[in-house]
This record gives sequence, C-alpha cells and structure tokens, in this order.
Amino acid sequence: MAKHFAERLLSAIEEKETPVCVGLDPIYTQLPKQVREIAAHSKSGLPEHAAAINEFCQIVIDIVAPHVPVVKLQMAYFELCGPAGLEAYYRVADYAREKGLLVIGDIKRADIGSTSEALASAFLDEAYFSDGKGGEKAASVDAVTVNPFFGTDGVKPFIEKAQANGQGVFVVVRSSNPSAKEIQDLADADGRRVFEHLAMLCNTWANFPGCVGESGYSLVGAVVGATYPREAELLRQVMPNSFFLVPGYGAQGATADDCAAAFHSDGWGAIVNSSRGIIYAWKKPGFEQYTEENWEEAVEAATLAMKVDISQALAKKVGAAT
Amino acid sequence: MAKHFAERLLSAIEEKETPVCVGLDPIYTQLPKQVREIAAHSKSGLPEHAAAINEFCQIVIDIVAPHVPVVKLQMAYFELCGPAGLEAYYRVADYAREKGLLVIGDIKRADIGSTSEALASAFLDEAYFSDGKGGEKAASVDAVTVNPFFGTDGVKPFIEKAQANGQGVFVVVRSSNPSAKEIQDLADADGRRVFEHLAMLCNTWANFPGCVGESGYSLVGAVVGATYPREAELLRQVMPNSFFLVPGYGAQGATADDCAAAFHSDGWGAIVNSSRGIIYAWKKPGFEQYTEENWEEAVEAATLAMKVDISQALAKKVGAAT
Repeated sequence: MAKHFAERLLSAIEEKETPVCVGLDPIYTQLPKQVREIAAHSKSGLPEHAAAINEFCQIVIDIVAPHVPVVKLQMAYFELCGPAGLEAYYRVADYAREKGLLVIGDIKRADIGSTSEALASAFLDEAYFSDGKGGEKAASVDAVTVNPFFGTDGVKPFIEKAQANGQGVFVVVRSSNPSAKEIQDLADADGRRVFEHLAMLCNTWANFPGCVGESGYSLVGAVVGATYPREAELLRQVMPNSFFLVPGYGAQGATADDCAAAFHSDGWGAIVNSSRGIIYAWKKPGFEQYTEENWEEAVEAATLAMKVDISQALAKKVGAAT
Repeated sequence: MAKHFAERLLSAIEEKETPVCVGLDPIYTQLPKQVREIAAHSKSGLPEHAAAINEFCQIVIDIVAPHVPVVKLQMAYFELCGPAGLEAYYRVADYAREKGLLVIGDIKRADIGSTSEALASAFLDEAYFSDGKGGEKAASVDAVTVNPFFGTDGVKPFIEKAQANGQGVFVVVRSSNPSAKEIQDLADADGRRVFEHLAMLCNTWANFPGCVGESGYSLVGAVVGATYPREAELLRQVMPNSFFLVPGYGAQGATADDCAAAFHSDGWGAIVNSSRGIIYAWKKPGFEQYTEENWEEAVEAATLAMKVDISQALAKKVGAAT
C-alpha cells in the first residue's frame, strides 16, 4: 500500500522547504505564442489546443519542479479542449509525477452516492491515455478536490477510494470567490454559518477510521479560501487534522499574511496555491522586465518570489507564537 | 439564434405526450453481455469499455426515442472510461440529437467565476470528437446541470452561455440523496433552510434579463429530488418560472405521486428522470419475464410503464385542481 498522503505531502514540503503549490490553469489564448507555434507542429498526436496546453504545462513543470512540492491541475481548462484535453490532463499529471511533484486534480466534483463512486474511481484510480507514440499508459493523481453540497454520501466514496490508494481528498469548505457568501454564509439561529457546519462535517470525515496518519494529519483536507483570513483562522481550529489547500493568493487578492492564517502556529498544515500569478507572471504588474519571449524566466522568478513571501509570513506567524 | 430552450422542451413534451426523461448511466459491468461482446469486436475506434457504453447507449436511444422527449447523460459513467469515455459522451449526445431527442448533460459542475466560464464553454459550446471513421465531428448538448455551492459567480457563466446558444441550465436546488439534508436542510433563525434560500436565488437567476421565454418558462431550471415531495410542492411556488428536472423516481424510491408534486397544477413544468429503472429494467423486481437476452424489450416496457404511471399521477393532480 502506498504511503499515507499527508506524510507524502509533509515530506515534499520539507524537501522543497515551502508549502507553495503551483496551479496549472492552461488557457490556450493566454499562452505565449511560441508555445502555440511549437504545438501546431508537434508530434504529440493531440489536436492543436490540447497539444499547446500539454506543451505549456510540461515546460512550467520543468521550471517549478525543483522549487515546489506540488502542482494543482485545474481540470476545467483541460476539458475546454474536449476529449483530447482530458488526454492532456493525464499526460501532464503523469509528467509532473515523473518529475517528483505531487499532483492535485482540481475537479471539484461530487454527486449522489452511487454517482460519486463512479467519479471517485474515474478520477482517483489510474486512467489509460494514449502516450502519443501509438501506445497506452496509465496515470492518476495524488489527490482531488471535492464539492461538499451532497453531504456525506457524495464525499465518502472519494475518501474510501483515496484511502485504498494512498491518496488525498480536499473538500471545498470555503471558496475564495465573491459570491461564496450567498450560500456559505447563511447562518443558523445560533449564528453558525453554513461553512462552519461544513467544517465540522469535514472534521468528522477527516477522522473516519484509518484516515488520520502517523503525523496527525488526515488524508481528508479542506479547501479554504485565503480571501477570508479571519475565517481561515477559525476553520483552522475546527479542522485541526486537515491539511488546507489555500487558493486566492495573488491574482485573487489575498496576501501572504492572509494565507498564513490557514496554518497552525508551528507553520505547518497548509499549502498555498497560485495559478495565474505564476504561470502568466510575465503579464503581471511588477514583472514588466519580462516579456512573452522570456516568459519561462518570469515563471521561475514569480515562484521564487512567492516562496520568499510565504516563508516570511510564516516565520512571522511562528515567531509570534513562540 | 436557436429557439428558446424551454419552448423546445415544451414542444418535445407535447409531441411525445410525456414529461419522462430517460437517464443514461452506462456502467460497463452492468451491461448485457452481448453488448459487451459486440463492443469487443466493434470498429468504433474506441477502447473496449468506452465502445461498450457507446454501443449500449445508442441501442437504448433507438428504443426510447419514439417514446420520450429527452435523455440525460450522467457524465460520471462516461468519465469512468477515461478520455475515450468523453469521446463516447459526445458520440452518444450527437446520436441522441440526430434521433430527435433533447439531451441534458448531467455534469453538476461549477467553480469560481473564471473557472466556471471555462466549464460553461467546455460543456455547452460544441466540442470536437473523433467520429470513429478517421474524421472529426462537433457536438453539444441542449442543457447541463449545475452545482450551486459557489453562488451567482459560479452559475452565471453557464446561464450566459446557455442564453447565447439557445440552451438550458438546471441548477441543483434539492438533491435526492439521503445525506442531502446535512447541508441543504440547515435552517436560519426564521426556520428557512438552505435549499429554500437556494430556490430564491435560483428564481432570481431564472428571471435574469432575457432568460424567461414566451411560454413563461425560463432557460434556468432546477433539479429538485422527488424523494422529498412536500418540499417539491413548496419549491414549485418559489420558482414558478423554472422547469424542474426531477430525479429519484423508481430506483431511488419516489413514486409517480411524489413526482407530481414538482409540477404546476396544469400538469406542466417538470420532467421526471429514471435511469437504472429503465436501462437495466431486466434486472428489476416485477420484470422477471425479461432476461439479459431480451433486455431491449424490458427497456421499452419500462419506458411505457413509466409513461402511464406518470401520466395517471398528473391526470389525478390536474383533476384535483380543476
């Protein structure tokens, strides 16, 4: 049986000395033109758009693999390229794992129980994809994100599958988007909001028999948006055994200090994702010295800058706690 | 521009004289062995499991197309076959539309706004898939299901895309599974539950400018589980302009009378889905005269029986109201 997911994640964070996760949101129209040109003439066996996002992600992986422990693949952008995009998703996941990265499939799925069983198998078991050379290969990811709307029935099949395979699950408890509050902030008679109830549920799931590993962390983690740092602090208390996957840094407006709220006072227990702020860094304010021509350098510089930024915020937090 | 989705749905229901929707949940291990054998030797260009579910769904479509207005494809079971399964999803959708059926893609997706834009385009715009003869074809569906957890940001991109394309969206307001209540039943200080808040939100979305067609129905519908008929009646009042997609009939325990609660008193405004009770009818109690050998006859008999059952329940409801 594979090693517990949380232990693998902890080792990877320790090795790379950072909890930074690079998000792969590959959007064809946003890609550097030279990548699109390479893809147009590639022998990947994929149609042009899928070939381009595959190429782009593999270049990004080459750049960030020495620096970060984990990447997150936003499945929607792969799906935007049709069935061939799903091929690219598996090729990229496989490539990232070959380069020693942990891979989170950001699928945000769930349904009624019997359907969630199918989803869990579809996205956690190995899937076969064409290797572009006339052969087939099997690949899977290390963890997926799950939507909590259907309750325990919808989430449990993912947890059971992840447990059997040595993988992880991140339940969306608090999303980072502006309208998250419409549903997630509804409060009961005691003032307890939906996302707080969800956090309690998620903590129950995290403590299902066999889910917590030797490290004290569960294979069941939580997605907690950094755009609401007060809440991240609160949720940190409610779900002590869950690793947090924290979106919202950079492009969505959260600072490193906001993100630090999702960590335990020892500076562990969360990973912070940035997608566009890294992979399209050459377009962002403060990165004017980079252009489409040397976009790879911008990716590396943005990754290193984020590592320093998060590291300083965590040092401050740990220092304040001791 | 394509005709309004609700008008197309109304015409199709009128033509087939039933609001029955057949759910395609193709599970390889559940398929009749002769279908699996045909698939093993097919020239579909798909791997065996994907070829089998493609074959199975097309046979079911041939059987039910004369009898029902709409089919629902549960994407999870297609995804269970990997990238080739997604090819099968588009082939089946395309085949069903060629046979005059409306097609709902049961994807239950949503994410933060920018990602939902990608999802809406991925699953409502035409996607290219291989036609199995060395060529490419484009296909799309008539409507998709959407998960409401992210609020307006997550749903709006689907509505806008559907509006531009003449398609529909069904927002999951009340799911039919046992643990639905864990989140969806949480009540505020006034006793109003999450799913009631959601229904009010959904009604707002349904009345976005240009969403309500000449018929009075919106392109924004709602998924309302029939396993909670009292609530379906309540929700019917809160979302007068929304077509309801009603899961739960048969295999999940809801009766035709339970389903009738989701309709207006004129007997219109909802479609009732059955998946396993129809496509695997030869295995169910009361259908012992059918076997794996004549499973197609069982599919037709179950479809016709469900039509009668729903029709009687609606006649009773309309009779009681007049």
